Amino acid sequence: MKPSQPSRARGFLLTDHYHLTASQLYFRMGLHERRVQFDHFFRSYPNYGEHQAGYCVTAGLEWLLDWMQETRATDDDIAYLGALEGAVGKPLFDRDFLAWLGENGDFSDISMRAIPEGRVVHANVPLTVVEGPLAMAQILETPLLNHLNYQSLIATKAARIHSAGRGRPLLEFGLRRAPASGASAGTRAALIGGADATSNIGMARLLGYPPKGTHAHSLVQVFMALGEGEIGAFRAFAEVYPDDCLLLVDTIDTLGSGVPNAIKVFEELRRKGHRPLGIRLDSGDLAYLAIQAAAMLDVAGFDETSIVLSSGLDELAIWQILTQIEEEAPRYGVDADRLIGRLVYGVGTHLITSGSSGLNGVYKAVALREGEDWRPMLKISEAPRKTPNPGAKTAWRVYDRRGRATADVLASIDEEPPTDGSLTLHHPVRRGITRTLERDEISEIERLLEPVLDRGERLREPEALDIMRRRRQADLERLDPGVRRLINPHVYHVSLTTQLWELKRRLVAETRGAG
Amino acid sequence: MKPSQPSRARGFLLTDHYHLTASQLYFRMGLHERRVQFDHFFRSYPNYGEHQAGYCVTAGLEWLLDWMQETRATDDDIAYLGALEGAVGKPLFDRDFLAWLGENGDFSDISMRAIPEGRVVHANVPLTVVEGPLAMAQILETPLLNHLNYQSLIATKAARIHSAGRGRPLLEFGLRRAPASGASAGTRAALIGGADATSNIGMARLLGYPPKGTHAHSLVQVFMALGEGEIGAFRAFAEVYPDDCLLLVDTIDTLGSGVPNAIKVFEELRRKGHRPLGIRLDSGDLAYLAIQAAAMLDVAGFDETSIVLSSGLDELAIWQILTQIEEEAPRYGVDADRLIGRLVYGVGTHLITSGSSGLNGVYKAVALREGEDWRPMLKISEAPRKTPNPGAKTAWRVYDRRGRATADVLASIDEEPPTDGSLTLHHPVRRGITRTLERDEISEIERLLEPVLDRGERLREPEALDIMRRRRQADLERLDPGVRRLINPHVYHVSLTTQLWELKRRLVAETRGAG
Repeated sequence: MKPSQPSRARGFLLTDHYHLTASQLYFRMGLHERRVQFDHFFRSYPNYGEHQAGYCVTAGLEWLLDWMQETRATDDDIAYLGALEGAVGKPLFDRDFLAWLGENGDFSDISMRAIPEGRVVHANVPLTVVEGPLAMAQILETPLLNHLNYQSLIATKAARIHSAGRGRPLLEFGLRRAPASGASAGTRAALIGGADATSNIGMARLLGYPPKGTHAHSLVQVFMALGEGEIGAFRAFAEVYPDDCLLLVDTIDTLGSGVPNAIKVFEELRRKGHRPLGIRLDSGDLAYLAIQAAAMLDVAGFDETSIVLSSGLDELAIWQILTQIEEEAPRYGVDADRLIGRLVYGVGTHLITSGSSGLNGVYKAVALREGEDWRPMLKISEAPRKTPNPGAKTAWRVYDRRGRATADVLASIDEEPPTDGSLTLHHPVRRGITRTLERDEISEIERLLEPVLDRGERLREPEALDIMRRRRQADLERLDPGVRRLINPHVYHVSLTTQLWELKRRLVAETRGAG
Repeated sequence: MKPSQPSRARGFLLTDHYHLTASQLYFRMGLHERRVQFDHFFRSYPNYGEHQAGYCVTAGLEWLLDWMQETRATDDDIAYLGALEGAVGKPLFDRDFLAWLGENGDFSDISMRAIPEGRVVHANVPLTVVEGPLAMAQILETPLLNHLNYQSLIATKAARIHSAGRGRPLLEFGLRRAPASGASAGTRAALIGGADATSNIGMARLLGYPPKGTHAHSLVQVFMALGEGEIGAFRAFAEVYPDDCLLLVDTIDTLGSGVPNAIKVFEELRRKGHRPLGIRLDSGDLAYLAIQAAAMLDVAGFDETSIVLSSGLDELAIWQILTQIEEEAPRYGVDADRLIGRLVYGVGTHLITSGSSGLNGVYKAVALREGEDWRPMLKISEAPRKTPNPGAKTAWRVYDRRGRATADVLASIDEEPPTDGSLTLHHPVRRGITRTLERDEISEIERLLEPVLDRGERLREPEALDIMRRRRQADLERLDPGVRRLINPHVYHVSLTTQLWELKRRLVAETRGAG
């Protein structure tokens, strides 16, 4: 009767088929409980077609941790796997492996270090380091990436849009264009990254942020069909929401009908002692219309009402609008700064989809436990920049004298940041390219990864979104403005210590010799 | 303790804030149960940056219908809304409205016509027509678009990739790059649109398709770290999966190590009476490597093994690879057609994200019930092509003598397709641009919209995915190859009947006169 019951596709089996076949192989070879480390990192910043990000904002960790704690292989999952067949019709998974999986198919033996949510992060720096038994750490690959890639992608886009809008309120309006139920994660990430509120009531409730909204064209259309016109719709809205009156003015003709009608209704509200909130522009030349609408509102004495802009906005559109306002407003006697100071942005599609094809976060095996030691692991790639940095590692952020982040440094796990002398930074790929920082040029060396999970136990309380939002704001302030540029950002340095560089070089040579 | 419990953001409140404020307004004005019609359609084909689609494939309907039947406002939802405050701290929603919503907050009074899933569809043609009481039909806007926009976007991308691959098997590998839990809807849509299987086990189970996969680089890395090398990993794989042996050959050096080692293991399998399945190439120049690998496999007598290609594929990458194989294979004594006939494509990121910023599906009020009649409603836009087609409508597809779809036609709801004479098609925007088809040039006029819901009752059984897949295949075969082109497709005609064109013209004139 119901072949399409979406609510079931959650839980343990929301992973890739090849992780389970690999796990059975490890089980068969007696390797499944051998401890291993995986690094999760992204290879390059999101590419939006005509422009590219210079930094990312990390998000998704708390939801990943929740998922790991809630999820285990159920009897149902095991039964499904038991029924799968290989190419010649024999069962793909054997009973002994399935019995082991039924018993051990959870994440209670996984430990994790991670860069907290909301931080500014860079390519090739491990954002999450997973340590655990080979089979379960491998099965975790896909759910981990699924939780972190998309949220980090959206948090990054939100940060870009928010900063293009010069900190004016940013409303997330994307539920209708969002990737189905991915909307929930996307809305959360948008709030971490820079959105100030969302129109998605369900997520607003979940996250404890008041939902926001205006009204739709259909409201005006209904009153027009009833013969009461746009003004009838506005009056009805003002009557029902006298203290929350924000009117959409572009259903018929923005400057010829919408704004004059809105002003008429605002005057009626003012006479009754209410303060109208503002107008929304959703089509046309938003910069020009905002200037003209502001001029008309000013004349009528409504110079503090908001002007909400929506319709296809992203960071470049907002940047263009503000540039145009600065250029054109004075010509109409409107103060550009004051006008910009009353703008609010409603962003849908381009925020919740990011306008890119995704963040290329990967999860790479870097070390295998060998007695008391971690044996480094490598995967060579024909493109040297795609050869991951091997071994158990740590990551530091180096701040210059001004307190600006100047580089992220990857080091082997047993290294400590220098307290005096100098720090030599190696280019991750090109031999002989180094940069030396004297210790007194450095104001701080910060450890980026924090322990979050110890054999399945959470090491700290879940964090409030506001903490993540402040963290993002603080990190952005310490980032070089060149790296924050919307287009052609300056490339932030991610370097290796001498010890890690030497390890990588040695392993590449050994691997090429093996095969 | 748990501010981030994702499972809660489902259900009735997964809609936009402004639909609920509008519904209260309608309630206050006594309009909330007035019946209305909304058209859902998309305005333009997905844009992938350097290229654009010429058609879409619709998907998501069954899940939307499931959601509508399962969802209603709960006491919890009502309590949350009751606690929301407006700008001056007063409750935003009044008790009488909330009492009505608690009683009537479901979709049991909604009727719907829709174009079934898997069909090829075009811009501005209503894919879904909703008829119901104003308040609930308005609240449905966002969940409807959320369910249909993303799935149709992904089904479309899958159809493009599948056809670029000349029908060779397409495996959906995108869970790790998917938009969080949106992966479920995306995987389903990929299967409707052209993927033949998925690596996402949870969705494979849900949809009844066997999950597929190969193995990861980490498997080889583990055996290398243990000193057993790539060949050790391949032998272990062959031992555990002798009849499902598909080896990833690019961890170290594809042609220098991976393919020779794979052939060695394949020979061992053959001696034991097993047939190896093939190899996977995941980096480098995939066309060149596929040719060389095929040549080596052929010499060793494995000329029927599959060659799975993955790594950043989309429709253009596949098209380029096949073009290059046709050009280059003969130079190495490899038959290009035979090689193409053994390819399998594994596509992740660009399928599950679509590589675009989304499908711009909208939901526009088109008619209001007035006694026994539907009064047409209009929203004017400054861009004439964005002015929706007004009134209660129907949609036909016109096939030419060869059985090829030649145009979609929008008509008023009371019109019938002509049985003789001719059919005049009006350009939807530009006056005076018409095209006349004599009835004997037309082999068939098909009604596109089917009744699917009658006041909340489903009018047919949920459909199997295979039916949708066959429907897509049949529609693509009847589509002009020019419209199917990957780049610069021919624009498919979507036209209006004379009656609908006249209605639109009259309403635009009246609306401009009103205001």
